[in-house]
Amino acid sequence: MIKIDFLPDKKNIKVNEGTTILEALERAGINIDTPCGGKGICGKCKVLFVEEISAASPIEKKLLSEGEIKKGFRLACQAKLFQDSIVEIPLEIKLDFKRVFSSNSKGDIHRTKNNFSIESNLKKVFLDLEEPSLDDQRSDWERIKDGLSSKKIENISNLKTSVEILKKIPVLMREANFKITVILYNNEIIDIENGETTTSNYGIAFDIGTTTVAGYLIDLESGEELFAVAKTNPQIIHGDDVISRIGFAQQSKGGLEKLQKEIVVTLNEIIRETTQKAEIDKSNIYETVIVGNTCMHHLFLGLNPINLAPSPYIPVIKEILSLKVKDIPGLSLNPTANIYMLPNISAFVGADILAGILSTSMWRQDKTVLFVDLGTNGEVVLGSKGELWACSTAAGPAFEGSRISSGMRAAEGAIDKVKIDNKSIIYKVIEDGKVRGICGSGLIDLIAELLKLGLINKSGKLIDREEGNFELSEEIKRRITKEKEGNRFLLAKSDETIIGKPIYLTQKDIREVQLAKAAVYAGIKILLKEVNILPEDIQEILLAGAFGNFIDKKSAVRIGLIPNLPLKKIESVGNAAGRGAEITLCSNKLRELSQEISKKVKYIELSSRPDFQEEFIKAMIF
Amino acid sequence: MIKIDFLPDKKNIKVNEGTTILEALERAGINIDTPCGGKGICGKCKVLFVEEISAASPIEKKLLSEGEIKKGFRLACQAKLFQDSIVEIPLEIKLDFKRVFSSNSKGDIHRTKNNFSIESNLKKVFLDLEEPSLDDQRSDWERIKDGLSSKKIENISNLKTSVEILKKIPVLMREANFKITVILYNNEIIDIENGETTTSNYGIAFDIGTTTVAGYLIDLESGEELFAVAKTNPQIIHGDDVISRIGFAQQSKGGLEKLQKEIVVTLNEIIRETTQKAEIDKSNIYETVIVGNTCMHHLFLGLNPINLAPSPYIPVIKEILSLKVKDIPGLSLNPTANIYMLPNISAFVGADILAGILSTSMWRQDKTVLFVDLGTNGEVVLGSKGELWACSTAAGPAFEGSRISSGMRAAEGAIDKVKIDNKSIIYKVIEDGKVRGICGSGLIDLIAELLKLGLINKSGKLIDREEGNFELSEEIKRRITKEKEGNRFLLAKSDETIIGKPIYLTQKDIREVQLAKAAVYAGIKILLKEVNILPEDIQEILLAGAFGNFIDKKSAVRIGLIPNLPLKKIESVGNAAGRGAEITLCSNKLRELSQEISKKVKYIELSSRPDFQEEFIKAMIF
Repeated sequence: MIKIDFLPDKKNIKVNEGTTILEALERAGINIDTPCGGKGICGKCKVLFVEEISAASPIEKKLLSEGEIKKGFRLACQAKLFQDSIVEIPLEIKLDFKRVFSSNSKGDIHRTKNNFSIESNLKKVFLDLEEPSLDDQRSDWERIKDGLSSKKIENISNLKTSVEILKKIPVLMREANFKITVILYNNEIIDIENGETTTSNYGIAFDIGTTTVAGYLIDLESGEELFAVAKTNPQIIHGDDVISRIGFAQQSKGGLEKLQKEIVVTLNEIIRETTQKAEIDKSNIYETVIVGNTCMHHLFLGLNPINLAPSPYIPVIKEILSLKVKDIPGLSLNPTANIYMLPNISAFVGADILAGILSTSMWRQDKTVLFVDLGTNGEVVLGSKGELWACSTAAGPAFEGSRISSGMRAAEGAIDKVKIDNKSIIYKVIEDGKVRGICGSGLIDLIAELLKLGLINKSGKLIDREEGNFELSEEIKRRITKEKEGNRFLLAKSDETIIGKPIYLTQKDIREVQLAKAAVYAGIKILLKEVNILPEDIQEILLAGAFGNFIDKKSAVRIGLIPNLPLKKIESVGNAAGRGAEITLCSNKLRELSQEISKKVKYIELSSRPDFQEEFIKAMIF
Repeated sequence: MIKIDFLPDKKNIKVNEGTTILEALERAGINIDTPCGGKGICGKCKVLFVEEISAASPIEKKLLSEGEIKKGFRLACQAKLFQDSIVEIPLEIKLDFKRVFSSNSKGDIHRTKNNFSIESNLKKVFLDLEEPSLDDQRSDWERIKDGLSSKKIENISNLKTSVEILKKIPVLMREANFKITVILYNNEIIDIENGETTTSNYGIAFDIGTTTVAGYLIDLESGEELFAVAKTNPQIIHGDDVISRIGFAQQSKGGLEKLQKEIVVTLNEIIRETTQKAEIDKSNIYETVIVGNTCMHHLFLGLNPINLAPSPYIPVIKEILSLKVKDIPGLSLNPTANIYMLPNISAFVGADILAGILSTSMWRQDKTVLFVDLGTNGEVVLGSKGELWACSTAAGPAFEGSRISSGMRAAEGAIDKVKIDNKSIIYKVIEDGKVRGICGSGLIDLIAELLKLGLINKSGKLIDREEGNFELSEEIKRRITKEKEGNRFLLAKSDETIIGKPIYLTQKDIREVQLAKAAVYAGIKILLKEVNILPEDIQEILLAGAFGNFIDKKSAVRIGLIPNLPLKKIESVGNAAGRGAEITLCSNKLRELSQEISKKVKYIELSSRPDFQEEFIKAMIF
């Protein structure tokens, strides 16, 4: 065994010789960003050997510069440890989100409250039962049943329960002196509790994203959101996107079980944190709604996602699913509590998008509404006169900072807003302080500003310094420099950044954004074609997802990511998926409706559309 | 650790010092009869130290004779081991049944076939599905659903399944080239199989008795019994009767889990043996019906039986229960297969009795029928004009050989029939060979014969030799000898027995039988009173249970165990409970009816009847 010290955390761990740094980090509980899933492709997981540098592998030699190798930089996924070492993890690859996910604030909840009423099939009934005697030898079960009957509870002739509850009954009933609270779900007893507990009635909604898992603890009596918590999806160490996760499930022994366990552990942490903060007993959580993309849906259930990825993209199940906590190994809630998995629309348009449709009410609006959710994929839904169309565009993870030279997620140190006037650049950094990189919204702002100044032309070329607008100050022009791979634009100087190196926008970065925005826009065009309307016929655009929250609408229009509508008709709807999960948690009617609505959505498979390629090329133009 | 050798098995085992012989035997897998459950009360678990005799404890000194102690006899439950020893286990206390349980032969099945038709909610449907493509992106689940729809299967709009099956679907469907067999139970898919398997459709019925567990493997297509196997209930080491089991569940740490596990292990053995013999795959067993007394019902489910035993005798649940194999930890059947627990009638009249009522059709007969099941308890059911009454009598285990000086179960070496004429005694021994003891049917025969000869008088006294009938031969008279505790009758001489000791019927034995038969008869009288009829109004008596199979009807009438009816009106119905389980396995209609019938049975609690004591005393007279 050898000992590895990690800086700046000052954590250390003992591992076997030959362990990779990535494996060691995982075991030490330090999460880093590995966009390619540790396959030695992206070269993002750079770490610095402070003591005892290991030899660079051919892959490292290819992906790192000579200078980096000399300084002691290695790739965490490649470098193996053979002796005691000290390794520093650069801040920009560490995963510790602070701001990615906003809770649905009280304001939001009140807004959604108008859209639905709390309606649950769950009832808590207090029973003060008679004690048994030789003249009254009813079984415990009959006693409870008759008690419910006397409270005029309907539908109990065919009352059901589970073995778990039957096991609980004889002892608990007597401990409680025959004063118990029965938790009824339809005609099933899902729990019994000692004494009168009818007012403690909670639910928890989860939005399981590829990157982030969010949980919302809800008081089912009032519909109020008590606490919300977001966590990084720990599966991220197996890769940034669903394709890497599917690959991991397929190729690693026990991979599927591991991926399921990783989600479950995260949900358990969220359950613990939210219930502790709200000071409630998690045994009083009886209902759970879960949304997520189709891959996360499958992984949470332990369903093999193998057929989601290669054409023709087939999910195991899309329909709404109702199950019990005990069906999910390790999930630390009441084993008889209900879990509802909202329906998926297709292999790449998941229940999270359906939840977005539900929370924005676009399914029942007459007007023409375009819903765009930008994450690792770009899902687009078009609603018109009560009809719905959807597609998934392979936007790629550029907007999440991947494949961008200084890209990062919208976390501490990321530039998330950029303004350039004639003379100077103004940018905003998340959590203020020094710069670590640029996130999606900053990138769109920057490109939009450079387009406005004419420094990027219609074809996406970052022009040469001397070609630039005559009125432009030298201060700005001088930021353009020539490189082998094309021009690049200096966004932040060395002294403005944490790592002490300047941050650039490269020609390649612009190409990545062009590809991404073209994919989204071409998807939108195909949907418009299906409905036989033009972009200008759209009456409202809803931008969803964490990214949609922070994006500058004007910039998004300027780079051609979304159709050119008056800005007041473009709205950020924030975490629509999470809110959709919350409202379906509170309303069984909406839950039932969700199945109907999901069936109504006409899914358009872009890969089978010969006209998609044409639209895609057209949309490349800025 | 010390080493113990067991004779005659020649098994040895290493145990810690201070281990009792009973514990060592249990670990060595040798089962012995411990009627009191190893509490040092009954003195039945006599074993012989061949080498290194341990000191006799006060309890052993009380329960064993001085001669026995000198020879090296000790009680397995009391004697602790402190050095390497050799211990011989006398044959008469070893448990290895050969004959206790008869299978329901083909003849029986054909007879019952007339009473019901095979009717199942279970369907096997073969589907030859189309492969998915970009033009047909239905999920695996939709594909199956549509396949069923095209076969005109009803009720699938709300088709359900479990996570287990969803996990299986994506891989199996493709391995099977989309040719699968779906197992449907109502509107639920409980399994899918590769290829066409529609004709493999099996069920297994279990009768879990306090002493014996029987299993019947049934072809659900033909209704034929393929194989039947009976095993000793391994819980027997914790005591002969349900009261000891309840005590064990209550007092031992993890006792309830242990008792459940013991039943499950036995069912697994039966499943293995029957499926191997029938050469079928146990994954093709989709339905299970379980009957048993209420205590066994609770223990199988892992329900705490603690309230069954002290007054007012309250079961957790009496109603029919439908569950899944996966609800029972360790049960080795298809986890999604159905288990039906037939309903109980009361704490001491279980689903086994209800199964008896079903298999004898007495629930739908107009005539007055008395059903008597004699085991550890004596359960009595009276049917008259479609109405049913039931009670449980504390007959005690005398008829199973317990508390009888030379009593034993109806196993190899037991005298099970006795005839005495003027001059000689003729008896029959199970499996022939030498005598080990006397079982219930032999005991009843013997007492009936002695009553006939006037050697036992009306009050139950075994008279003195000289008081005997003048015509009786000296050969018979001489068998009566005087002892401190009263007279005794010599049944088998030393040279006729395996243990080389004579076998007697003692005055105390007669008292035990008197108490038992009085309890049963008084129960019968109370039921007759409820219906307001006389014993002579009974039109038919059905004797059920293993014991009912072997009892001599004439003897049973003579000792006053059952009312004095013409013999042709008394019928042995054998293992009515097992047959009831079989027919409810084959017929869902009968299963549904079972709930109704159990509700119709009016249970009479004898302990709350002031007139019971009076009837009991009257019934003591022979």
